[in-house]
Amino acid sequence: MRDLARALYAEVADLPIISPHGHTDPSWFAGNGAFGNASELLLVPDHYLFRMLYSQGVRLEDLGIGGHPADPRAAWRILAERYELFRGTPSRTWLDWVFSEVFGLEVRLDGETADLYFDTITEALQTEAFRPRALFERFGIEVIATTESPLDTLEHHQAIRQSGWSGRVITAYRPDPVIDPDFEGFQANLDRLSELTGEDCRSWQGYLAAHRQRRAFFAQMGATSTDHGHPTAQTANLSSTEAERLFRRVASGGHAPAEAELFRGQMLTEMAAMSLDDGLLMQLHPGSFRNHNRKLFEAFGRDKGADIPMRTDYVHALKPLLDRFGNERDFTLILFTLDESSYARELAPLAGHYPCLRLGPAWWFHDSPEGMRRFRRMTTETAGFHNTVGFNDDTRAFLSIPARHDVARRIDCGFLAELVAEHRIEDWEAAELARALAYDLAKKAYKL
Amino acid sequence: MRDLARALYAEVADLPIISPHGHTDPSWFAGNGAFGNASELLLVPDHYLFRMLYSQGVRLEDLGIGGHPADPRAAWRILAERYELFRGTPSRTWLDWVFSEVFGLEVRLDGETADLYFDTITEALQTEAFRPRALFERFGIEVIATTESPLDTLEHHQAIRQSGWSGRVITAYRPDPVIDPDFEGFQANLDRLSELTGEDCRSWQGYLAAHRQRRAFFAQMGATSTDHGHPTAQTANLSSTEAERLFRRVASGGHAPAEAELFRGQMLTEMAAMSLDDGLLMQLHPGSFRNHNRKLFEAFGRDKGADIPMRTDYVHALKPLLDRFGNERDFTLILFTLDESSYARELAPLAGHYPCLRLGPAWWFHDSPEGMRRFRRMTTETAGFHNTVGFNDDTRAFLSIPARHDVARRIDCGFLAELVAEHRIEDWEAAELARALAYDLAKKAYKL
Amino acid sequence: MRDLARALYAEVADLPIISPHGHTDPSWFAGNGAFGNASELLLVPDHYLFRMLYSQGVRLEDLGIGGHPADPRAAWRILAERYELFRGTPSRTWLDWVFSEVFGLEVRLDGETADLYFDTITEALQTEAFRPRALFERFGIEVIATTESPLDTLEHHQAIRQSGWSGRVITAYRPDPVIDPDFEGFQANLDRLSELTGEDCRSWQGYLAAHRQRRAFFAQMGATSTDHGHPTAQTANLSSTEAERLFRRVASGGHAPAEAELFRGQMLTEMAAMSLDDGLLMQLHPGSFRNHNRKLFEAFGRDKGADIPMRTDYVHALKPLLDRFGNERDFTLILFTLDESSYARELAPLAGHYPCLRLGPAWWFHDSPEGMRRFRRMTTETAGFHNTVGFNDDTRAFLSIPARHDVARRIDCGFLAELVAEHRIEDWEAAELARALAYDLAKKAYKL
Repeated sequence: MRDLARALYAEVADLPIISPHGHTDPSWFAGNGAFGNASELLLVPDHYLFRMLYSQGVRLEDLGIGGHPADPRAAWRILAERYELFRGTPSRTWLDWVFSEVFGLEVRLDGETADLYFDTITEALQTEAFRPRALFERFGIEVIATTESPLDTLEHHQAIRQSGWSGRVITAYRPDPVIDPDFEGFQANLDRLSELTGEDCRSWQGYLAAHRQRRAFFAQMGATSTDHGHPTAQTANLSSTEAERLFRRVASGGHAPAEAELFRGQMLTEMAAMSLDDGLLMQLHPGSFRNHNRKLFEAFGRDKGADIPMRTDYVHALKPLLDRFGNERDFTLILFTLDESSYARELAPLAGHYPCLRLGPAWWFHDSPEGMRRFRRMTTETAGFHNTVGFNDDTRAFLSIPARHDVARRIDCGFLAELVAEHRIEDWEAAELARALAYDLAKKAYKL
Repeated sequence: MRDLARALYAEVADLPIISPHGHTDPSWFAGNGAFGNASELLLVPDHYLFRMLYSQGVRLEDLGIGGHPADPRAAWRILAERYELFRGTPSRTWLDWVFSEVFGLEVRLDGETADLYFDTITEALQTEAFRPRALFERFGIEVIATTESPLDTLEHHQAIRQSGWSGRVITAYRPDPVIDPDFEGFQANLDRLSELTGEDCRSWQGYLAAHRQRRAFFAQMGATSTDHGHPTAQTANLSSTEAERLFRRVASGGHAPAEAELFRGQMLTEMAAMSLDDGLLMQLHPGSFRNHNRKLFEAFGRDKGADIPMRTDYVHALKPLLDRFGNERDFTLILFTLDESSYARELAPLAGHYPCLRLGPAWWFHDSPEGMRRFRRMTTETAGFHNTVGFNDDTRAFLSIPARHDVARRIDCGFLAELVAEHRIEDWEAAELARALAYDLAKKAYKL
Repeated sequence: MRDLARALYAEVADLPIISPHGHTDPSWFAGNGAFGNASELLLVPDHYLFRMLYSQGVRLEDLGIGGHPADPRAAWRILAERYELFRGTPSRTWLDWVFSEVFGLEVRLDGETADLYFDTITEALQTEAFRPRALFERFGIEVIATTESPLDTLEHHQAIRQSGWSGRVITAYRPDPVIDPDFEGFQANLDRLSELTGEDCRSWQGYLAAHRQRRAFFAQMGATSTDHGHPTAQTANLSSTEAERLFRRVASGGHAPAEAELFRGQMLTEMAAMSLDDGLLMQLHPGSFRNHNRKLFEAFGRDKGADIPMRTDYVHALKPLLDRFGNERDFTLILFTLDESSYARELAPLAGHYPCLRLGPAWWFHDSPEGMRRFRRMTTETAGFHNTVGFNDDTRAFLSIPARHDVARRIDCGFLAELVAEHRIEDWEAAELARALAYDLAKKAYKL
């Protein structure tokens, strides 16, 4: 079985990388400037790393998180001395890959080698071969999607396109800041959206028109998808009169918490309607309790490793949207979850029935060997492989992208080898599926 | 370990089939007429198949679902050309078994062999050897239970009994149409029940008497069990005055949704009380959101692959019934679930304590290799094997019955071999258990 | 892989036992009297055993449970004749270990050997080598914690300390009887607490002072931890005025059910505040529906194998406490669960972020090979190993303690071997971790 897994993997290991959803910074590819140093590149932006260090008593200030000044070499040493904390985690696998494959470091990272690592990495980053575009090419990335707010001018994406560089970097439409009434600065965001679009975003029709305009602009900048990071998967299907009335309350800030939830739900359905017109597929990433640690949020801001998954219902929550668009063949809604108990119970049965639904890969905390295996074991028998969409790295840790795709390819090949060993599929089918999971399905589902 | 699994399996592979719960059509065995053609037999009644095709854009009209006319050969071709969608699903395993073991087809099903398959199967079906009774005997079925509503006259069961044929086909009492106030036609069903029984089913006492009468008649037609397909596992234990008052509201149609739920819950407890009198064991199949796709339901009717599992609570829901009958030794309630998170958390602890409780096998979406493995791994350590009841095929796909039992026997033997390999049981114990899981436990639990 | 697992295990198999949480009886070690007979020692106190027998129709009266008189030899025979019910359960593994390792019994337990077993065990128990202290030493126990209520005088612990015996037996502070308004005798318990401490436990400040006093006394008797067995993980963070007002309602017995829940939640936060002062770490064991079987509870009392796990939320429930103390580095809260769906979704992300949180091992129904494997597979990738605390046997079945630790060591070594086989850690790291999981982490987390 291990031999078969290895043989399957050998055939897909070098396929180009399709990265249809993630959070890399387009300015890297626009400016192609050198990355700063080991800590700035690998530690400070990686909430997987600093959350674990924090859980074991390290102060975020000492790592230079949240704008607090810290000596990058000293911060790196803190990581190095505690690298054993990451045993058994995917962060360890990804970092080891970066150290050895990208920087050629073969000694073990610990307190004694901390400086060697810091210097080797930091020096390499000053060379041409480690500029963003050079790494993009070296990594074999065929296309990568970033994620931007409607309020983003997409100037970096424009610069990339005008630069003549052949790398394909596209955007994705993530409208949470102007859709979620609980988002910081929601009111100001509406005003900014009005300015950007020339629409009156205090009126329901103007607000919807502004979305349509920005979506069209994003599509022009290569976007093939939208993305929605709501606390729940709740959708709604209000009459247009009710929707307008709700919008007025939300836009004036005088809404109740339940109205914020209802508005987010209604906007998912509105976005679906727009998708049917402009062809952008939808992604829904629900179920994270954002910024759970109040004091940390106040001192260091959002996205500091304190987002905690919640139990998430899909069967009731999605019904309003599905009642309206569930049977559409020209609309795609890709569902993600942080609640694995929904894989076999809700998500696979939904995706194995509704024409518009597809399942995104194991997400975030579950983007790991065990997590990916659970995903395949709990979804395949009901939804099959063709209702899934290949792999997303979903990361801002640019250097780890090949490692993440590599882990996914290995785990999927391992799973396929199990199916062959149990006579559930033939080996030639496993080979076809290995390629589909590594490359074809992502390309097709995301229209890339 | 694989060798031991194979050895265990070899000893149980040919045991007779006990099929204590399922949905085959008794008219097949009564009339013993020829099945029609490949699509009519294998595709149209199998919601596992057409739901997957539908999820990938196939129109149900083109498959001849829901009474829509379609060319059966063309429908079969649609399946054949998309057979790869089923890779990794149990449907694929079952169908492959039917193709090779029942029809001797050894080439691969795809677009090129679609006609060969259609013709081979359809021609075979016209022969004596493929009539229902001949297949029943060829499959080694010792006994099979169908499932009928109290409104069913059981004429086919009567015909089978009077025919002199030795095959044992029994019924089971599934009273949802006259117990669930949300069932289509509930009011008319009460009237029909009055007619059938001569009881006044608009009075609480008459209604209960009608149940008793029909249960007795079902038992006479071989039934050993009742079956209940409620949306939740909620039970209730009202005083007889309260129950009567609730029935009056429900029977008049003027009830609130919560009263429908309460009535279903009360009727589970009433059915338990009758079971103590007449010895029929109870089965509870809760947790399916039936007909989730509104438009599909309106166009094609119920049971069209759009039933989606929901989170299901047992620990609170069953308490009213268990408070009353939980400690009875002469009463059996077999619990099923679509929510695997309840296996280790609620179901195994409940069944490992209450004398009346047993656990049904992995059900529906979970009737699959991975699903069965999860069932054993998550229930055995707390409930043991003897609080489980062997396998149910629970299918209307008659030809797949041996394949389904075969998968269950293989997976159980694999699990037992693991236990032996880890020195948790001895090999002779595994052999005893393999037989118990394949045959003895079902026979005993269902009194067959 | 099996070879590596065995090699890892060989290095940790004989490490001393750290038992930081459990329910053995301190009077055993104080008085060092002989245990009575096989049934009294092994069957009557073990709710794992008699719940399974009860589920299969055995009457508890016949086993001598709940103070009902029964012939111990006859009770033992009932177990022996039904020993096959335990196939595949951890009880079987633990008992087999006790039979062979402690009593040298090598024949199989069944009806024929029932008397041999009963006599061998009962006779051995009369000898010096089977007295509690001798077994403690033979088992290689370095330290064991019992669990007592604040109302306990700890006289047995005092006696142990004064006896000159070198065995280390410590207590732990379990204040449920005086914290949970739903606990039997809560009002009388408050009075008893007043008497014991000389504080007025009908006043909020007196009540808190009484806790502080008893905690100090428990710490003097070796306690390093408190333990809380609440129905949910709900915490609260009321102002001191609100808390006082709530206490008055609760202490007068005139509270609503929701107020009992709120009070329990507030007291968890108060206990956390005291922990910051006195250094006792906290353990939270939530999510059990205690005494689910009403009739059994009325006839036999509490803790009779009828406690059933419930779905348990942590992400919202713990927030009030975490908002206040979550970022403290000198406070430890060890979380347990009976709801495995929270492992990957809530518990690992929480423990992988908050400095104060650690994860207790697989608990109760999940203290088993499959349960432990699920725990490691679902928590390690997000929380790592260092946010876990090694093993707890959590048992009152004294003789099974070495067997329980042995199972945990084997399973952990198996898991580590898997990680090595998949190149996720190095073999020398696995060896370090095997030792940490078997010994170091428990010692460090529990300050032993």
